[in-house]
Amino acid sequence: MIRIWAIAAAMVAGLISAAAQEPPASAGPVPPALIDDLVVANRILSDRGILDAFGHISVRHPENPTRYLMSRAIAPGIVTAADIMEFDLDSNPVDRRGRSMFIERFIHGEVYKVRPDVGSVIHTHSMGVIPFSITKTPLQPVIHNASFLHVGVPVWEIREAGGVTDMLVRNAALAQSLAAALGNRPVALMRGHGNVVVGPNVRIATSRAVFTDENARMQSVALSFGGPVNYISSEEGALRDSNPSDGARSWDLWKAQALKTTQ
Amino acid sequence: MIRIWAIAAAMVAGLISAAAQEPPASAGPVPPALIDDLVVANRILSDRGILDAFGHISVRHPENPTRYLMSRAIAPGIVTAADIMEFDLDSNPVDRRGRSMFIERFIHGEVYKVRPDVGSVIHTHSMGVIPFSITKTPLQPVIHNASFLHVGVPVWEIREAGGVTDMLVRNAALAQSLAAALGNRPVALMRGHGNVVVGPNVRIATSRAVFTDENARMQSVALSFGGPVNYISSEEGALRDSNPSDGARSWDLWKAQALKTTQ
Amino acid sequence: MIRIWAIAAAMVAGLISAAAQEPPASAGPVPPALIDDLVVANRILSDRGILDAFGHISVRHPENPTRYLMSRAIAPGIVTAADIMEFDLDSNPVDRRGRSMFIERFIHGEVYKVRPDVGSVIHTHSMGVIPFSITKTPLQPVIHNASFLHVGVPVWEIREAGGVTDMLVRNAALAQSLAAALGNRPVALMRGHGNVVVGPNVRIATSRAVFTDENARMQSVALSFGGPVNYISSEEGALRDSNPSDGARSWDLWKAQALKTTQ
Amino acid sequence: MIRIWAIAAAMVAGLISAAAQEPPASAGPVPPALIDDLVVANRILSDRGILDAFGHISVRHPENPTRYLMSRAIAPGIVTAADIMEFDLDSNPVDRRGRSMFIERFIHGEVYKVRPDVGSVIHTHSMGVIPFSITKTPLQPVIHNASFLHVGVPVWEIREAGGVTDMLVRNAALAQSLAAALGNRPVALMRGHGNVVVGPNVRIATSRAVFTDENARMQSVALSFGGPVNYISSEEGALRDSNPSDGARSWDLWKAQALKTTQ
Repeated sequence: MIRIWAIAAAMVAGLISAAAQEPPASAGPVPPALIDDLVVANRILSDRGILDAFGHISVRHPENPTRYLMSRAIAPGIVTAADIMEFDLDSNPVDRRGRSMFIERFIHGEVYKVRPDVGSVIHTHSMGVIPFSITKTPLQPVIHNASFLHVGVPVWEIREAGGVTDMLVRNAALAQSLAAALGNRPVALMRGHGNVVVGPNVRIATSRAVFTDENARMQSVALSFGGPVNYISSEEGALRDSNPSDGARSWDLWKAQALKTTQ
Repeated sequence: MIRIWAIAAAMVAGLISAAAQEPPASAGPVPPALIDDLVVANRILSDRGILDAFGHISVRHPENPTRYLMSRAIAPGIVTAADIMEFDLDSNPVDRRGRSMFIERFIHGEVYKVRPDVGSVIHTHSMGVIPFSITKTPLQPVIHNASFLHVGVPVWEIREAGGVTDMLVRNAALAQSLAAALGNRPVALMRGHGNVVVGPNVRIATSRAVFTDENARMQSVALSFGGPVNYISSEEGALRDSNPSDGARSWDLWKAQALKTTQ
Repeated sequence: MIRIWAIAAAMVAGLISAAAQEPPASAGPVPPALIDDLVVANRILSDRGILDAFGHISVRHPENPTRYLMSRAIAPGIVTAADIMEFDLDSNPVDRRGRSMFIERFIHGEVYKVRPDVGSVIHTHSMGVIPFSITKTPLQPVIHNASFLHVGVPVWEIREAGGVTDMLVRNAALAQSLAAALGNRPVALMRGHGNVVVGPNVRIATSRAVFTDENARMQSVALSFGGPVNYISSEEGALRDSNPSDGARSWDLWKAQALKTTQ
Repeated sequence: MIRIWAIAAAMVAGLISAAAQEPPASAGPVPPALIDDLVVANRILSDRGILDAFGHISVRHPENPTRYLMSRAIAPGIVTAADIMEFDLDSNPVDRRGRSMFIERFIHGEVYKVRPDVGSVIHTHSMGVIPFSITKTPLQPVIHNASFLHVGVPVWEIREAGGVTDMLVRNAALAQSLAAALGNRPVALMRGHGNVVVGPNVRIATSRAVFTDENARMQSVALSFGGPVNYISSEEGALRDSNPSDGARSWDLWKAQALKTTQ
């Protein structure tokens, strides 16, 4: 079924991107507060060990849903506002100016194409989730802060989409397959690689990336006890989805901690 | 039996709180040293990773056992004396002044109602204890600094008290059920959520929250060996309860470490 | 056999300590460099997480083998030269001046009595070793830096020495039993409590405390794989004992790291 | 077969080194940028916990493949350019000036002899890999950043090469056996000791040492789940080998983090 989703998504994407030959037009300036949030998200995820040298975070352009913003290819822990670039949904840069770009930026563009509800996309190599990407053990919610996982966490197998690869999502076709595996969920794991995490905005996506990793670590310990695990149920998760936590509380704390660390 | 306790406690609480219609009266000023201890406890538990952005700590008012003190709804790591608010045992604020309050503050009020011996209540999402909250494996004392766990550590299942919820202790009825599960013990786990830890004062409650988490982590490793575990016995724990450790030694160290970290 | 050792050691100790009625005489001033090493050892073990608020380190007096030096009862991470006190081997203070003393100081005095080769004693609550103190799984050397464990690591069960206790080594009789369990080895575990580590001088004892904890953590992971573990053999360990590592290299590094952290 | 390789390599090395009686000649000055990279590699591996007080990093001399550069025997975390010494491939110092040398420096010289493709050699006590060195569980790639492990990670058993030893690679014969076990691979584990990691240059070798440790930790957790693990295949690894990651991104980040920590 993943294959069918992938094929369908690829067809749609193909129609959209067919004419992309020259640099796309800019959707115009972005509110500084949004750029600041994007920079802070980079710093928070680096400070908390969710991102190391690799991985990236993007936000959709608030004025034009066919554009997104993401840093040039540098480590998230040193990103500043000056490093933010604009891309169209085929992940072509609006104004490259010779800057290096993330090879796997297609993940972002292809997710935005099929998920109009998504305002931010994160790709991490988060160490806590890797074991769930390489075993038959599904990642499931064990803490209420990660109850959004109740809809299931698919594991995307790049071999199904691209056969033998170097494990990187190097093109739109692979990214479309990943986006199809993600479906309408908040998180998908990438086998032997990491995950993709999405949210309506960068603050919620950041929080989801942090709590997905914490949940994975605690679930790993619980599994080591050898008995059954009492997971958060779909009904509980659904109810929680409609009553989200106070995101400002963690954002403000994590921001203060991250900026102190790196400045 | 937990249900029966919960119902009984709810009835008592209902009689007490029935008339609460307007802001309760203040029990008067609190010694600055007590407020300072409460602020320091917030910083210590944040610095040591027992609390992250969520969780809260309260102390009972020294002049009036029907009032308690707790910060407004901010991250414990940034609490200052100016953030401390006063509540009655139905968790109504004495002088709200528009400040946001912890949704789960009812945990504190309902525990104080049924535990006259308790002077401080802590609610954490402590990562070490979560695996014991979602498995059939009981948390038991393996280090003498956590020997207070010898009386047993119940796991409160919110489904038994409230059916399908969003996992939060949003009202007095749920908190009464949790307080009933706690009974006369120092710690109760909350399934898929964290724990509630109590003590005669904020320093002892803080120490218990720290050592409960450390005990859980070491017990987890010991369990992974697959053989029987030699727990601290009830008799040993009881004897230790009557000879508590030098709390000042850890408090002074943790305070120095926490304030250096955040200032 | 442990009981017999304990009884014999207690008899010897009793003869030595029978006349201790008034403060013992001082063995005279100690070279500042030795005091400095003792202070640095406190800071290193705190900085590296081997000691938290509890635990203690002593050195034997270089001029008189019946005296030892140890800090007053404060957290190791804040010890300075001014905190160092002198004790006789019954653990009576030479010049108390109202200072609080570690309840478990008897561990030090009783080990010095029966181990003339020992120049430094450390008692820790080191988290890595606890699982080996509460299971039937013996701690064994898996890294060459901890090859000194090849002689075996006994687990001292306080129940055998004192029946039901509050787990603390509160008197000479308990400490004599622990010293007897230690025998002529470098490390003994204390069930549900921690360990005692000894060495010819404070630098080697400190190094042993660090590598014992690291060894325990790596052995725990290896055990989780479920198959046989290839331990360092007695022959290898014995050969290594005669070719000790360059202790200055770790001491100098750890000292630099510890003093930076706390000053 | 390892023995045969070792014997053959020893014969070749013996011919090369037979005449080494007096200090070898220098291959001349080294570009400061290369020395700087070597110093930074020391700091990075210390900062990230891959090296503690022990372990060492070398680079081959760019002008003369029979010379290599490595620090005198001090902790990697405090190495500066002034500490770098020059050695021939028998690990004799060009200009000792009374400086202490790593006992195990033979590892470097003997690897350079048989691996003309190697420009940098690292020996670590990396905690993550130890469990794989003392069990029958092979270290295998689970994250794409460590896909270079796809060629297999041999475990060198010093007992096979030297019988009962003190576990140290104290001479050329032992080092030749280790180099033979390494063969043409990037990493070999040393039982109860650590690993040897090689690369075409110091930046790639450093990255491999870091990701080998991370891979080991994640594989350990995955193994604890008890089911089959979906490893990165040889085909995927080979394809990735031909498309290496952007090493500058991690190097620049790690360098910034390491120098901030220690200066």
